[in-house]
Amino acid sequence: MGEHEEPIQDIAHLGHVELLTPRPDESLWYFTDILGMEVVGEEGQSAYLRAYGDYATTTLKLTESDGAGVGHIAWRTASPQALERRARAIEATGLGIGWMNGDFGHGKCYRFRDPDGHAMEIYYDEERYRAPEHLRSTLLNLPMKYPKNGVGVRKTDHVAVLCKDVAKNREFATNTLGLKLREQVMYENGAAEIGSWMSSSAVHHELAYVVDVKNASGRLHHYSLWVDDQAEVLRAANILREHDIFIEAGPSKHNNSQAFYFYSYEPGGNRVEIYTSGFFVLAPDFEPVVWNEETRGTGVYWGAALPDSFLNYATPVIKDADEAPKPDAKVIDAL
Amino acid sequence: MGEHEEPIQDIAHLGHVELLTPRPDESLWYFTDILGMEVVGEEGQSAYLRAYGDYATTTLKLTESDGAGVGHIAWRTASPQALERRARAIEATGLGIGWMNGDFGHGKCYRFRDPDGHAMEIYYDEERYRAPEHLRSTLLNLPMKYPKNGVGVRKTDHVAVLCKDVAKNREFATNTLGLKLREQVMYENGAAEIGSWMSSSAVHHELAYVVDVKNASGRLHHYSLWVDDQAEVLRAANILREHDIFIEAGPSKHNNSQAFYFYSYEPGGNRVEIYTSGFFVLAPDFEPVVWNEETRGTGVYWGAALPDSFLNYATPVIKDADEAPKPDAKVIDAL
Amino acid sequence: MGEHEEPIQDIAHLGHVELLTPRPDESLWYFTDILGMEVVGEEGQSAYLRAYGDYATTTLKLTESDGAGVGHIAWRTASPQALERRARAIEATGLGIGWMNGDFGHGKCYRFRDPDGHAMEIYYDEERYRAPEHLRSTLLNLPMKYPKNGVGVRKTDHVAVLCKDVAKNREFATNTLGLKLREQVMYENGAAEIGSWMSSSAVHHELAYVVDVKNASGRLHHYSLWVDDQAEVLRAANILREHDIFIEAGPSKHNNSQAFYFYSYEPGGNRVEIYTSGFFVLAPDFEPVVWNEETRGTGVYWGAALPDSFLNYATPVIKDADEAPKPDAKVIDAL
Amino acid sequence: MGEHEEPIQDIAHLGHVELLTPRPDESLWYFTDILGMEVVGEEGQSAYLRAYGDYATTTLKLTESDGAGVGHIAWRTASPQALERRARAIEATGLGIGWMNGDFGHGKCYRFRDPDGHAMEIYYDEERYRAPEHLRSTLLNLPMKYPKNGVGVRKTDHVAVLCKDVAKNREFATNTLGLKLREQVMYENGAAEIGSWMSSSAVHHELAYVVDVKNASGRLHHYSLWVDDQAEVLRAANILREHDIFIEAGPSKHNNSQAFYFYSYEPGGNRVEIYTSGFFVLAPDFEPVVWNEETRGTGVYWGAALPDSFLNYATPVIKDADEAPKPDAKVIDAL
Repeated sequence: MGEHEEPIQDIAHLGHVELLTPRPDESLWYFTDILGMEVVGEEGQSAYLRAYGDYATTTLKLTESDGAGVGHIAWRTASPQALERRARAIEATGLGIGWMNGDFGHGKCYRFRDPDGHAMEIYYDEERYRAPEHLRSTLLNLPMKYPKNGVGVRKTDHVAVLCKDVAKNREFATNTLGLKLREQVMYENGAAEIGSWMSSSAVHHELAYVVDVKNASGRLHHYSLWVDDQAEVLRAANILREHDIFIEAGPSKHNNSQAFYFYSYEPGGNRVEIYTSGFFVLAPDFEPVVWNEETRGTGVYWGAALPDSFLNYATPVIKDADEAPKPDAKVIDAL
Repeated sequence: MGEHEEPIQDIAHLGHVELLTPRPDESLWYFTDILGMEVVGEEGQSAYLRAYGDYATTTLKLTESDGAGVGHIAWRTASPQALERRARAIEATGLGIGWMNGDFGHGKCYRFRDPDGHAMEIYYDEERYRAPEHLRSTLLNLPMKYPKNGVGVRKTDHVAVLCKDVAKNREFATNTLGLKLREQVMYENGAAEIGSWMSSSAVHHELAYVVDVKNASGRLHHYSLWVDDQAEVLRAANILREHDIFIEAGPSKHNNSQAFYFYSYEPGGNRVEIYTSGFFVLAPDFEPVVWNEETRGTGVYWGAALPDSFLNYATPVIKDADEAPKPDAKVIDAL
Repeated sequence: MGEHEEPIQDIAHLGHVELLTPRPDESLWYFTDILGMEVVGEEGQSAYLRAYGDYATTTLKLTESDGAGVGHIAWRTASPQALERRARAIEATGLGIGWMNGDFGHGKCYRFRDPDGHAMEIYYDEERYRAPEHLRSTLLNLPMKYPKNGVGVRKTDHVAVLCKDVAKNREFATNTLGLKLREQVMYENGAAEIGSWMSSSAVHHELAYVVDVKNASGRLHHYSLWVDDQAEVLRAANILREHDIFIEAGPSKHNNSQAFYFYSYEPGGNRVEIYTSGFFVLAPDFEPVVWNEETRGTGVYWGAALPDSFLNYATPVIKDADEAPKPDAKVIDAL
Repeated sequence: MGEHEEPIQDIAHLGHVELLTPRPDESLWYFTDILGMEVVGEEGQSAYLRAYGDYATTTLKLTESDGAGVGHIAWRTASPQALERRARAIEATGLGIGWMNGDFGHGKCYRFRDPDGHAMEIYYDEERYRAPEHLRSTLLNLPMKYPKNGVGVRKTDHVAVLCKDVAKNREFATNTLGLKLREQVMYENGAAEIGSWMSSSAVHHELAYVVDVKNASGRLHHYSLWVDDQAEVLRAANILREHDIFIEAGPSKHNNSQAFYFYSYEPGGNRVEIYTSGFFVLAPDFEPVVWNEETRGTGVYWGAALPDSFLNYATPVIKDADEAPKPDAKVIDAL
């Protein structure tokens, strides 16, 4: 963008994410009984879920499928006009699919694929959540009761996907969608773009692209849910361990983002992060932070180093010998 | 005790507490659905509960009754010999009632009353908890799964009772039972003993005597349950507020005990404390800490000052105009 | 704004705040030794401070003055063009003062007063902080070392001011500055606007207007600093109590904003809040939440109710009998 | 002990620990500037330190020496009579050294060695800490101000040592000293006693013996300091990372003890643990928990697995190629 141009602010925030699961019942158990999310609707092979702090009716769509992975990633625009502007901009890149009627909880949307092939959509109209009596919070400004059962995730935070060419996808996200670049991992003196973290809002990152070491397309690295406090991450780890759910890494502190987190696999096989803290970005001229081989180190500030599976495992799974994580969890056994 | 004598260590720890409730179903809902305790048995008008960290099978007996209050307070001795020794010592004071067959979860016990009339018992034999398969923890050293639902109280911590004459009851507890004095509130240059906090173990206090401003006998001030972390107290406050359960005071930090806590009323009317931190006492020559009018101040180190109801309200309730707390909770309405 | 118009996004975030203090040395001790902020410059009667997470060089200017209060409140714009646009819009209201050369750490700014008379400014150019070697963080994305000494506040969060006419000031802030309305307290069936909370960013509120019960002008209610975790609020309360600094209210949880906080008085007399949690707003069509007499209650969700001084005390102090808080702190004695 | 005998309760608690360091200035910086301990005395080559919650004047003696390691481990008895009894019992084993005049802060003591050769002592008389005015807490029941600077460790918690023969040392500790066995790691169907954790008090463990894989004698595995809350462990990790102090493992949760912790190396080379939570043992008939190859797993409940250095590295260091940890810390470089 030229030096006199003002930045695009058409995307307001990450709206919702669709996850695919070959084990819909177990996945639903994980997101509701364990994490404390609420089912607000079911249609066809899909269940629509929400976290207690979500203003939208639903932010997670869980769809039965042959394999795990991400179904689509949806962005809410700042206005109806912004929706039109972004649809035209995407269309101009040749990556557009077209307008669709809205899904459960939101109005018409424009579908497209990112350069790596992940399905995405943008939309503006959405149904604000109105809690039924028994789920109404005693706080006027909280859309739903703080859940007493389960982890109590507050909201969908971000999604991280793998891709063949990080630069190409990062350029699409920043130039065409208007996301802002936050952090990058660049190896080989900047020649190798290993990963880029971006956001449309003050949230540290809503979308990350990381290189797919298996050279596949359209895969999901992880889906991340926010809790309000570091202690809730620790409590969540206790709960997952007591229910034999595999924790792949953490609780630890990221250097990139400064967030406190752990990664688990939901029973369908998708990697799910429980996440908090980190920092928010308000500065209009925030300088992206670039990490290299040395400064990135093991990728954690303190706590458990990321295991090999963190690089090798993604969904859908590509069957080969070396990618298999070795979880101690019973739930994940049959994967 | 003479200067060459060694201290009595016959009582090992507070064993269990019986609460009386005129609303057994709602009280049970409070302790299980809200606080996350487990019912391990039912007999007659009583339910037997446990917290996930309790080594004993049960530490809370909940008994239907006309009014709220404490049924009895039970102490576990350090050995069978210690049980005999303490029974003889109590008998010698004339406060003994006699030997009884054990209740659910423990063996024979010796019953007595403290000088103010609260029923107490001592026992040694008790049934260690063996969790059924679905409640077995993934930690060998945890008697039961850490609960994912509800507050997740870990154990019974202490009980505080009111009495007419604190000095008399404190002397009985220290001289006859062998509890160690930890802290006191003494007004009027030491002439008025407002309260005394005692323990048989390293726990800061397991029993408190506080003067009954209504000059009644045998009443309960509060029953206290431990959680592991300050953040769990804050989470508990959110949960209670969302379920319209009256929080009388806190979350705040006591000056006496340094603990972080809040007080609520369970639906039967008994005051229940959620409690953590504070300090443990290991020194054999710990000097009791004495607070006066000035140093005690409002009784809190920081956070909400204690309201008038904290002095005036106890169970069983004595009906008069000025004692009524004014809770905003719906559950407590009909009390 | 008309239904087809898009919202103004010219203000990016609250930039910095100037506090006035009659006790500059003691105030500096409070913000540096106690809260852990860093002095980055001194000029004339002012010291310039920063918190460890601030991207700007300075976010707090502390200026010696006859009385306490707020010197000015500064907003950073989203771009140079946005600065020009907002300056023109303000000028058109007749509240403009004019362009000034930048202060320490930032470029030229446009000065004005809000309708109640509080001095404000807008600016775009600012000096990004570059830590000297001994303060450089081991995290590339953290502007300064996490402080090991003191409370460790991360950033300036918001400022709350009193005014005679909340509606008039709120309209100026939303219509002319383009801030978004988040929450309101409206009494008498909406006839009395007691307070309004607004933000230019995803932060819950960066500016609050609350009615001045003394009908004065230009006063400060409080200045608020962010910490990362609820436990840091509790630790901060311990530290302030150990150093005889008056805590007026809390630690408690606001219902408005859901934040966890406490209020103290810095030695100069200004109310300072230590603050965390709450929620961030990303939705472009967020519906302002309106509290009335009943739903607002005591103004806290749980914890200490707000004392009378919370309504009566502001800076500069207006001398009369009934406003005086009765702090137990020695530091505040001579006020 | 026979079935009719009552348990020995002569040792009241772990009293203090002496650490040896070849870098006394840097070690002192670590314990005071970083961890927030206080120096209360200096004599010869030793400095005497305390944590803010210690009732005794000093609990850590830091002595300049050629190499790192543990100087001695001291136990406080429950009474003067208990001191005499234990001294006679130790003498009878042939491991006694003899009576010595007290060190700084405590009275006469009886010195001995455990079967592996670690120097130990028992004593009863000790000087209670009386804080000077500037360090006096605003809490009557806290011996010293809660420190605003540094990590703020509260007290010495426990010490873990290596030995050639765990069974022999464990038997000495339980039979002769009267410590109670809490947990064990037993491999090869119970034939190989890898480690045993013991306590004289309600603290989970005050002394651990773990097998020395290098078959050396008298070495220290780690010295552990308590903080009050899980969040303080996380804050401590931030502080240590910012000051280039090597964190070897954690923050993580132990399965044995359930504690939340991390391990660092102080500049002298000794491993120091920051530690909280876990559980206290009050039951007089607590059943020791035994872990085997399968149930112990990696030794953590969640979080970072323990690295090889955790087994191989101890102080004094035995020079060979494979034991060297590879810290990223600058402070530790010259070791």
